[in-house]
Amino acid sequence: MTFSYNQLFTFTEAVFRGIGCPEDDATLATETLLSADLRGIDSHGVARLVGYVRLWEAGRINPTPRVGVTYETPSTAVVDGDGGLGLVVGPKAMRVAIEKARQVGTGWVSVKNSNHFGIAGYHAMLALAHDMIGVAMTNASPLVAPTHSLDRLLGTNPIAVAVPAGEQPDFVADLATTTAANGKLEIAQRKQLPVPEGWVQSADGSASTDANAVKNGGALLPLGGATGSHKGYALGAVVDIFSAVLSGANYGPWVPPFVAFLQPPTDPVGLGLGHFFGAMRVDAFRPADEFKAHMDNWVTTFRNAQAIEGKKVLIPGDPERAMAAVRLLDGIPLLDAVIKDLEVVGQKFGVKL
Amino acid sequence: MTFSYNQLFTFTEAVFRGIGCPEDDATLATETLLSADLRGIDSHGVARLVGYVRLWEAGRINPTPRVGVTYETPSTAVVDGDGGLGLVVGPKAMRVAIEKARQVGTGWVSVKNSNHFGIAGYHAMLALAHDMIGVAMTNASPLVAPTHSLDRLLGTNPIAVAVPAGEQPDFVADLATTTAANGKLEIAQRKQLPVPEGWVQSADGSASTDANAVKNGGALLPLGGATGSHKGYALGAVVDIFSAVLSGANYGPWVPPFVAFLQPPTDPVGLGLGHFFGAMRVDAFRPADEFKAHMDNWVTTFRNAQAIEGKKVLIPGDPERAMAAVRLLDGIPLLDAVIKDLEVVGQKFGVKL
Repeated sequence: MTFSYNQLFTFTEAVFRGIGCPEDDATLATETLLSADLRGIDSHGVARLVGYVRLWEAGRINPTPRVGVTYETPSTAVVDGDGGLGLVVGPKAMRVAIEKARQVGTGWVSVKNSNHFGIAGYHAMLALAHDMIGVAMTNASPLVAPTHSLDRLLGTNPIAVAVPAGEQPDFVADLATTTAANGKLEIAQRKQLPVPEGWVQSADGSASTDANAVKNGGALLPLGGATGSHKGYALGAVVDIFSAVLSGANYGPWVPPFVAFLQPPTDPVGLGLGHFFGAMRVDAFRPADEFKAHMDNWVTTFRNAQAIEGKKVLIPGDPERAMAAVRLLDGIPLLDAVIKDLEVVGQKFGVKL
Repeated sequence: MTFSYNQLFTFTEAVFRGIGCPEDDATLATETLLSADLRGIDSHGVARLVGYVRLWEAGRINPTPRVGVTYETPSTAVVDGDGGLGLVVGPKAMRVAIEKARQVGTGWVSVKNSNHFGIAGYHAMLALAHDMIGVAMTNASPLVAPTHSLDRLLGTNPIAVAVPAGEQPDFVADLATTTAANGKLEIAQRKQLPVPEGWVQSADGSASTDANAVKNGGALLPLGGATGSHKGYALGAVVDIFSAVLSGANYGPWVPPFVAFLQPPTDPVGLGLGHFFGAMRVDAFRPADEFKAHMDNWVTTFRNAQAIEGKKVLIPGDPERAMAAVRLLDGIPLLDAVIKDLEVVGQKFGVKL
């Protein structure tokens, strides 16, 4: 069953109003959240609305946060999210990075005391309209075992980088630093299928293709999988350090879990979870029109590469942009289980889907 | 056969003097190059000295470059390497980044008109002594096929990030954005062994375990390998864009090859190859002692994680630091073929190994 973007927008915004978000914040949170559904990253979109509501019910989300800068230099800042929705804190922190870039060429903002912020790509893309390169990272619930570890110490810790082009569409890389995002495991679980090797390890650290391995004490594996997970581990670690050790958020195993039925650690090392944002004016390096002309050439060169038979060489961001075009027109399909969840949530606040 | 660090230093410095480098530059280039041998990354160290000399003989390295800033804002700069050794241009550009970070919190420098710069980790680590986080990237000879491509459009494009700790040793991540570095292929070639799946593809784009696949028209695969190379492709692309599209260097298939017997493209889109450097003062985000105490806790937590039986959880940089301690004491082992090459080069300049 599919729903129009506007229909989901109205519904989601009303739910955020229901948990007490001021009007502007509810609108912002909705835009951030639904950008995932539009771009085809269904695991991070409206399907998680019920998760955010449960966190609010557990008193772990502040619907009226005072988001503000607590420490700064001309090109950096730490933003305190005051326990708010990452969906709101993220764009506000990104605005600080963009403003600093306007002043001194680049801006870098590390965020503490926040919550899950949807898809990293959305935040990075906020820089594009200003002729800036955008960078966004976040740490997340610990589900990933560093190389050789049985303990789960990292999240899927995504990195997104958005680069403006000229005539060509923008370049948007957005990747978890794990072999596969947790959402892909959930799909395999629902279909009762095994997962490829290199995605997960079992509770004793051995290779596994069991889609339920993480639930049963195993772990997601860093990007690089069975033979080269040390690279994904290093990247995920950098995201954790930039997002949380720089800002004063929780890092590693102390990151509060997204699911409300798991309690956050009772010995926190910081406040909430952490993000890291960057904005770089392209004309802080060379005239913007020159940069964009070369970026167009870069994109065209890669897109026109000779492809393996039956395949196509894509530019990072191509599939998500194509999906957004389709879904804006044809609507966003939701699974029955998600619709049911949303209806239950809607009833709480007297809102109809 | 092993050589002391000092012995190799004296020899290498004399060779760089031989190609016409001023004394300070020869010393700097030697320190940069040999940091690879010390840290156990033998493919990028003195074994490549002959390669640099051949590039100089082909007129493709300027031994007396005027390295300078050509464009800047308070937090950014473009540095023109004037065709010099990347081994010299890199540290000089990193100094610009560090100076900018001192002024406004962070410094970001994109470099054009350079050459290969040794190991990325060395450059990133230059920030550590200043209580800064260091970032270093470079593009490189096109040997890597983007996902679904038959054409080789990217280099192994490494990313390095160095983070200072307090009592604990520093965190140093340094990774090629490919499944395996080209040096590992060369080792397999010498031993006439196959390589693991996911390292290379053959000329028609099919999966291959042939260590000679790249020589025979195939390509290295981006990090993630057979099933998830789109993530490594995106990361390698970001390195290419930051290093070359921002600076005005050559990008993608236009990056000049390291080997002197391959000619650079006759239709360049920029100058030489490109690097990207960053420096971030940790006290641009929070007091340095606070940051370092939490970084110590981060390192200790990860190092003490419960390990898979018979394994140990390492911190990025641990193996290289341990290797450097051993090699400073016991000397640096060189393969016979490398020694022979060095002796031939030494004779050209009247220098004995």
